Amino acid sequence: MKLTVLKEFLNESIQHVSKAISSKATIPILSGIKIDADSTGITLTASDTDISIQSFIPIEKNELQVIDLKQSGSVVLPSKFFVEIIRKLPAQQVEIEVKDHFQTTIRSGSSEIQLVGLDPEEYPIMPGIEENKRIQIPSDLLKTMIKQTSFSVSTNEATPILTGILWTISNGKLKFTACDRHRLASRETTIDTNVDLSLNNVSISGKTLNELSKILPDQNTLIDVVFAENQVLFKMSSILFYTRILDGTYPDTSKLIPQVYQTELVVNTDNLADAIDRAYLLSREEKTNIVKLVMREDQTIEISSSSSELGKVTEELTTVSMKGELLRISFNSKFMLDALKVMDSEHIHIGFTGAMQPIIIRPDENSSLLQLILPYRTMG
Amino acid sequence: MKLTVLKEFLNESIQHVSKAISSKATIPILSGIKIDADSTGITLTASDTDISIQSFIPIEKNELQVIDLKQSGSVVLPSKFFVEIIRKLPAQQVEIEVKDHFQTTIRSGSSEIQLVGLDPEEYPIMPGIEENKRIQIPSDLLKTMIKQTSFSVSTNEATPILTGILWTISNGKLKFTACDRHRLASRETTIDTNVDLSLNNVSISGKTLNELSKILPDQNTLIDVVFAENQVLFKMSSILFYTRILDGTYPDTSKLIPQVYQTELVVNTDNLADAIDRAYLLSREEKTNIVKLVMREDQTIEISSSSSELGKVTEELTTVSMKGELLRISFNSKFMLDALKVMDSEHIHIGFTGAMQPIIIRPDENSSLLQLILPYRTMG
Repeated sequence: MKLTVLKEFLNESIQHVSKAISSKATIPILSGIKIDADSTGITLTASDTDISIQSFIPIEKNELQVIDLKQSGSVVLPSKFFVEIIRKLPAQQVEIEVKDHFQTTIRSGSSEIQLVGLDPEEYPIMPGIEENKRIQIPSDLLKTMIKQTSFSVSTNEATPILTGILWTISNGKLKFTACDRHRLASRETTIDTNVDLSLNNVSISGKTLNELSKILPDQNTLIDVVFAENQVLFKMSSILFYTRILDGTYPDTSKLIPQVYQTELVVNTDNLADAIDRAYLLSREEKTNIVKLVMREDQTIEISSSSSELGKVTEELTTVSMKGELLRISFNSKFMLDALKVMDSEHIHIGFTGAMQPIIIRPDENSSLLQLILPYRTMG
Repeated sequence: MKLTVLKEFLNESIQHVSKAISSKATIPILSGIKIDADSTGITLTASDTDISIQSFIPIEKNELQVIDLKQSGSVVLPSKFFVEIIRKLPAQQVEIEVKDHFQTTIRSGSSEIQLVGLDPEEYPIMPGIEENKRIQIPSDLLKTMIKQTSFSVSTNEATPILTGILWTISNGKLKFTACDRHRLASRETTIDTNVDLSLNNVSISGKTLNELSKILPDQNTLIDVVFAENQVLFKMSSILFYTRILDGTYPDTSKLIPQVYQTELVVNTDNLADAIDRAYLLSREEKTNIVKLVMREDQTIEISSSSSELGKVTEELTTVSMKGELLRISFNSKFMLDALKVMDSEHIHIGFTGAMQPIIIRPDENSSLLQLILPYRTMG
């Protein structure tokens, strides 16, 4: 392999694929980035077996010559050092030359770097994926849906399936569900599918989807999502992002969500979040995060927390509307703050069906976004 | 105590004094912030015994009424929660009321916070300091001098005196010296003193001076520095910053600095820093940080580093001038980068007196700023 490439393009591609590199690679070759150069361009590949990312740099882009290819070839280079050094090279042009035994020389301006390369034949091959189960979703909608649900996935590795976001598709609707047994977040949207597609048990790691979010383009472009037996492939214009489907059966969470409420509140989102945030500060010192909400006859609510050592925080809040039975209920204030943060609406509707029943938070009554929090059982 | 104070002023003062609070307070009362209110204003005090900071809020400022005092008094409040909650209060006005047993109520808008206060009588009294040994120094100059030297203090607690920056004053000149046995940084300036003051063994913790830097005003105002037996006091317009003088005798470092050079280089600062940074990246992987500098007949220098596992980085650099014997010398690249970062000049002068003798880096030949690095003994 021998070629010259514009640093800016090489660096951008490296930054993308490097998100797939684990600091504790199980197979030594996976601590490297694979580089394949041929007459179409350069493909970079990185993988930690759970995630694999490929990024493609074309020979030409918008009539700009990006790559000057002298000889095709492949090599695997040590990722950590490679990622950092390319960014810091002095000149706009970077020359890469691979000789016998994958000895690689990188030249740029007055810098010359010699690297011990590895054999690309040892690098795992990307899975072939049939494209018959495929949907298209706008990049910014996908980002929003990940943001609105991913914080609710379980961090407990004993139940791996719950560390993922469940993707369900039926009747042209895509739904994300994340649930850690104490709270649940769900978001639905209508989508374009190329076939009458239905999915019911595709759970993808919340962590992985957050990584994907970082490289999803900001512009409102369509992303292809392809579902295979064990893998999902996200296709962006020059990036392929492969991830594993989590093993196991996702539990049925539909019965958790009440259909009728005993009590319904409408409150200003920011005012509620600020009041809970102050009560949270004290509850955090007690390491419980417990905050109490008490509804009053005069359509106001009281939010409070207390700590035996420090004292007490009491907040009074007027509601926009309140109907149904007056309740006292305790919940995890951190969970409530997480839910309120992704609401994106001036007012929110909170539904209750009793002091020991799930609390439902939605931007409005018919929203495609729903957050559920289980209350705490407390004394008094 | 009962008063109302503008949140913005209270918050600013709290942020300043909170820098003196240690997360592992040795005396329980020191985990709190002391508040004293009288007819002149509010004084906040925080201390970790090494550093003490007092901040004063006046009753009025620029014809704005800052405090409405109803009753004088004192209390100590738990710092961590107090610092955070004041910042997040909903209204501009904050009411503080202390009742029996130091039970404190803070009210702001619709928030009410009850805090268990502590007895201010238990709080240590600030040392009385005689003001006869006093200098004045512009705030931004003091910040610069701290920045140019503090990175060279020792982090080894076995030699506490070397964890400080040595302040020496003689003939109207103030000099900072920091030395960790492998490198030395020094910076000198002329100052205004009120007496014919001379100091030779005042070492102040580098960490403490970095904390001071954060609260020194950005504007070019004069700071009073008062030297007492064991303490130094920095006086800003509304802040008093007390710190301990480190025990022990600071070693004589003057003999370390060569008076004549065998070889002298002048190079572009940024070009040298960039080349060393690339070589550093590789040397860091070897955990040695060793970089080699080789001078050539053609007035160029070669900077290189190598790693048995990864490979080699070679950088070529033209010099502005080079005179004296051609040398090969190895040094810690991280130390050199630290030194170059605070140079603030387009070109630097580097002086050598042999491969095993100190390397001297200065912005120019007669500069008040000097950085010294001891070389490494290496093979080949």
